[in-house]
Amino acid sequence: MSAWVLPDHIADVLPSEARHIEEIRRNLLDMARCYGYELVMPPLLEHLESLLTGTGEALGLQTFKLVDQISGRMMGLRADSTPQVARIDAHLLNRTGVARLSYCGPVLHTRPAAPHASREPLQLGAEIYGHAGLEADLEILELALDSLRAAHVGELTVDLGDVRIVNALLAQTTLASEQTAEVHAALATKDASALAQITANESTDIASALQQLTQLYGDVTILEEARRVLPPLPAIEAALDQLQWLAGHLEGVSVSFDLADLRGYAYYSGARFAVYAAGAPDALVRGGRYDAVGSVFGRKRPAVGFSLDIKALVAVARPAGLRAAIRAPWGEGKALREAIAKLRAAGETVVCVLPGHESEVDEFQCDRELLQFDAAWRVTAI
Amino acid sequence: MSAWVLPDHIADVLPSEARHIEEIRRNLLDMARCYGYELVMPPLLEHLESLLTGTGEALGLQTFKLVDQISGRMMGLRADSTPQVARIDAHLLNRTGVARLSYCGPVLHTRPAAPHASREPLQLGAEIYGHAGLEADLEILELALDSLRAAHVGELTVDLGDVRIVNALLAQTTLASEQTAEVHAALATKDASALAQITANESTDIASALQQLTQLYGDVTILEEARRVLPPLPAIEAALDQLQWLAGHLEGVSVSFDLADLRGYAYYSGARFAVYAAGAPDALVRGGRYDAVGSVFGRKRPAVGFSLDIKALVAVARPAGLRAAIRAPWGEGKALREAIAKLRAAGETVVCVLPGHESEVDEFQCDRELLQFDAAWRVTAI
Repeated sequence: MSAWVLPDHIADVLPSEARHIEEIRRNLLDMARCYGYELVMPPLLEHLESLLTGTGEALGLQTFKLVDQISGRMMGLRADSTPQVARIDAHLLNRTGVARLSYCGPVLHTRPAAPHASREPLQLGAEIYGHAGLEADLEILELALDSLRAAHVGELTVDLGDVRIVNALLAQTTLASEQTAEVHAALATKDASALAQITANESTDIASALQQLTQLYGDVTILEEARRVLPPLPAIEAALDQLQWLAGHLEGVSVSFDLADLRGYAYYSGARFAVYAAGAPDALVRGGRYDAVGSVFGRKRPAVGFSLDIKALVAVARPAGLRAAIRAPWGEGKALREAIAKLRAAGETVVCVLPGHESEVDEFQCDRELLQFDAAWRVTAI
Repeated sequence: MSAWVLPDHIADVLPSEARHIEEIRRNLLDMARCYGYELVMPPLLEHLESLLTGTGEALGLQTFKLVDQISGRMMGLRADSTPQVARIDAHLLNRTGVARLSYCGPVLHTRPAAPHASREPLQLGAEIYGHAGLEADLEILELALDSLRAAHVGELTVDLGDVRIVNALLAQTTLASEQTAEVHAALATKDASALAQITANESTDIASALQQLTQLYGDVTILEEARRVLPPLPAIEAALDQLQWLAGHLEGVSVSFDLADLRGYAYYSGARFAVYAAGAPDALVRGGRYDAVGSVFGRKRPAVGFSLDIKALVAVARPAGLRAAIRAPWGEGKALREAIAKLRAAGETVVCVLPGHESEVDEFQCDRELLQFDAAWRVTAI
């Protein structure tokens, strides 16, 4: 095998895509800063138990493990930064009030999360801690939407749901935890016959409500439908009220609902959302409320957040044009060197043509060149 | 052990430092772009043999290894991005002319490179391929210096050397490779008696020249001294000429030389440099010429580059002040929401005070607030 062959689902990012990723990265971090979110940088490596506590089995399978030569303990490479940021909120900042945090960095997956996904997504996210009210859910949703707009992706659709609806129904059953996992799987694929089998021994009310859930997706009218067909449990009514409030406050996007969808939300505890864009095969952003994530770090705080993969985003975002550049000869003269330094200090890209390479084609889009007129160097259009 | 304890030499980066790191990261990538360097993003994980080919044993010890569940093959977490960028130049870009590349991302070390170093440096670097002349060495040095200036670090000293001097002397000996490694170690610590022992059976000329090397450090006058005391081998004379040329073209920095220093330069093949700043315990930047790095990827090209750790840099760089922010109440009114959106679109940070958190102290430095006057919302100094 050649030394330059990369592992499957691992890739180099070459200049044109790297420039686009960097541009989106900056726009999105700036957007989070405009909303008052402070940047933090959790480490790539942690003790395994810090990375995996309370986050579900799926994350454990996705996490690369290795031995710390210093301590002999098992460490993991982060597969998701959300639990790390909850740890930072719980332990390092330890604020009593609202904390708004953002982050951006690579995560690693033992296997790709989707058939064409990278095993090294560039995860960017934002989280707000300390506020239990829906205002926090709305702020995170608006920041997620503004982030996608800043990346120039196409028409957006927000899909809303709430894990409390399924949980409230399951709480009425006698199902063991492996069976509730089967219910989750059957709901994800909207497999009504599998659901009927699993819930064969449960009360007709609950079994039929779970059946109904597989049909409860679509526009805002399904909220009314849900109120009609689901049992009037307080948790379900609260969840439906909150989804309606959130949807009513979103502007400039179409909103849909899927009350059975629980995919990829192992740690969510309330309203959850996914944002889709025209042309993207899967959701670009997932987020929601996960009030329990910090509890393993000794501090259970209300929390809402979202995350996205910039590499997936860049595949559907409209790239900005190339930045223009100035070609300059190489030379030792003071005037030339000063002219180049001055242009660069003003933010211009100046590419020096090194001796012997005069006939090469520029990789930058050089639309001007630095030429000598008598004693002076002047920028001239090519 | 508590779930929030991190491994040794692994740390979270909290908001004030993270903001500073992000600022330096952008300034340095922009500086590289101004010089015409294109950003690339090599992966964190590669097959072990791609990461370690031809780069020396030290890098192998620093590299975390893990098994790829997909292929069953060994992979490594990059401990240095330089060989990766050489692979990109050799295989993916495959240009015949000059290629200028930059990169920035975390690398991981099994053990810290220095007593207080992080095991997760944030490595930033730039490399120029395809030009064998000293103009490339000078451009890389100038970019490295401009990068440090852009990060606002103190007074700079450039330390120059050239691995060809030691190599030319060693080529005249009968020493086996483990003995040349001992010579390198003795030169690094300037241990003249160890050198005398290792070279006891060599010609007096060469043994004495290696002894002299341990004294050949200091200002530019040691180049003349070197011409006097070292044997007149062509490789040595060429190296001394080139060091003199480079030093003569550097402006605004003090220059020193150390002809025995080979530390941290496993793959260098010519002139090498380190840049020190007042207040920094170790070199902030190391770089030089390494024409052989691409050869294992099937393409030996002239190459010069440098790299630095932004986390080490930020520890000695002067931080920029906090960005000011605007405090705003939370509300559903259209006028308020529009006023906030407009301020954010103009780049302002607007922190919404969520209901019930009015008495909390802001983490941002809010110097203004958004207040309602009749129907209009106006920004007012606090």
